[in-house]
Amino acid sequence: MQSSYTREELLACSRGEMFGPGNSQLPAPNMLMMDRITIMDPEGGEHGLGYIEAELDIHPDLWFFACHFPGDPVMPGCLGLDALWQTLGFFLACSGGPGRGRALGVGEVKFTGQILPTNKKVTYKIHMKRLVKRRLFVGIGDGTVEVDGRTIYEATDLKVGLFTDTSAF
Amino acid sequence: MQSSYTREELLACSRGEMFGPGNSQLPAPNMLMMDRITIMDPEGGEHGLGYIEAELDIHPDLWFFACHFPGDPVMPGCLGLDALWQTLGFFLACSGGPGRGRALGVGEVKFTGQILPTNKKVTYKIHMKRLVKRRLFVGIGDGTVEVDGRTIYEATDLKVGLFTDTSAF
Ligand SMILES: CCCCCCC[C@@H](O)CC(=O)SCCNC(C)=O
Ligand SMILES: CCCCCCC[C@@H](O)CC(=O)SCCNC(C)=O
Repeated sequence: MQSSYTREELLACSRGEMFGPGNSQLPAPNMLMMDRITIMDPEGGEHGLGYIEAELDIHPDLWFFACHFPGDPVMPGCLGLDALWQTLGFFLACSGGPGRGRALGVGEVKFTGQILPTNKKVTYKIHMKRLVKRRLFVGIGDGTVEVDGRTIYEATDLKVGLFTDTSAF
Repeated sequence: MQSSYTREELLACSRGEMFGPGNSQLPAPNMLMMDRITIMDPEGGEHGLGYIEAELDIHPDLWFFACHFPGDPVMPGCLGLDALWQTLGFFLACSGGPGRGRALGVGEVKFTGQILPTNKKVTYKIHMKRLVKRRLFVGIGDGTVEVDGRTIYEATDLKVGLFTDTSAF
């Protein structure tokens, strides 16, 4: 596990080049929701079980501003939420889990502020609460989304699993 | 309020033509996550406060299958969740609320199955639990996502508000 990852490394992960065939991939653009991972600390966070920080640079030509909504651009809350699953899932895959990443759910989500084309930077933060490393790898954590330093989304019990066989879903 | 809406009507809503300037719009493609609303009953549902059903036709060339994930196509869970906020928000706007729609959160989300390019139809169902029609319109409801008749996502306390002034966020 590295302590940080560049956009080029995240894109290689989305192509399946980081963890190999049958294992986890990040989504590729347009679903990839981060530009870099700045902190990955397997013993950090509120519970000492892992802390991850990732970033997305905001610029007005990001694809979702044009369609959400026409004339009233705001980043879809669901995409910021997906970024939290992506960040947590990447940590899980880096922790050695085999299989493909699937989001399994989230406890409670609150959106108290919005991300506009005039903003500069979005920061995703995950505190791992539980990491199950059995046949099935599952990770649970709490996450926040900040825009230019202000916390605007909060999500508890984000849950991602890694599946060597996804046919049972 | 009509009892059903076609894709053409939903697209007109996304362009701002249904509710007029400054009022609610659905997201336009690629963020619009439904093809039609089949049932809209303001007195239906488990609580008699409203029931809405919407559909998305699945075909392998939907944009998100190519990037999520390359070689391992599955519909992003966050987009199915957004569809539930879209469905609830549309009901709220049809209930007469002025202002622009913003998702405010969700209680608990569980993904127990996946949507693949080989599937045919996704159905979104919302049971309204609460509808506040003050200066600020807020709607809360429970929702499910079904794929070809099987319930695979469940979400409680989906919350959307309509804001005549979004600058306070
Ligand atoms: C016809 C009415 C339709 C309302 C549609 C709401 C659907 C969601 O896509 C909204 C967000 O994600 S809004 C952005 C997240 N929330 C905030 C406060 O920024
Ligand atoms: C390097 C590892 C990255 C894992 C990324 C998970 C990010 C999400 O975009 C996953 C879903 O939405 S999976 C689809 C929803 N869940 C199911 C069971 O279908």
